Amino acid sequence: MAKVKVHVFLKNGVLDVQGKAVEGALKGLGWNVENARVGKLIEFDFDGADPAGEAKKMCETLLANTVIESYRIEVA
Amino acid sequence: MAKVKVHVFLKNGVLDVQGKAVEGALKGLGWNVENARVGKLIEFDFDGADPAGEAKKMCETLLANTVIESYRIEVA
Repeated sequence: MAKVKVHVFLKNGVLDVQGKAVEGALKGLGWNVENARVGKLIEFDFDGADPAGEAKKMCETLLANTVIESYRIEVA
Repeated sequence: MAKVKVHVFLKNGVLDVQGKAVEGALKGLGWNVENARVGKLIEFDFDGADPAGEAKKMCETLLANTVIESYRIEVA
């Protein structure tokens, strides 16, 4: 059983409205924050061979919208 | 300028409907996946003293709903 973490985030150049909102709110509260980006972190236990390769397939088919999103996979 | 990563996730015991949906969908596609959880990963550059302490304050005031969510802070 492998612990898999998948980080899905908008590609550079795609406007991250959630990130902009967070940045604006933090600035409004007095913090000097730049380049805020909000992504998703999906964690699960995977039972099977080649967790990294299977996680890549999961991202391509379901977890990420590869038109606008990138992903990073960590297997522990 | 410190790079700060904040991982916000639902506390254990709080039903994670997004995680359940991901788990069900991956199972439906033939992957043997358990305990899927979906969280948020907020990344930003912070200019100021004590980034870890300030990030903790940001979480308490804005980034996390501490009634149902926990957070983990990484400063690089």
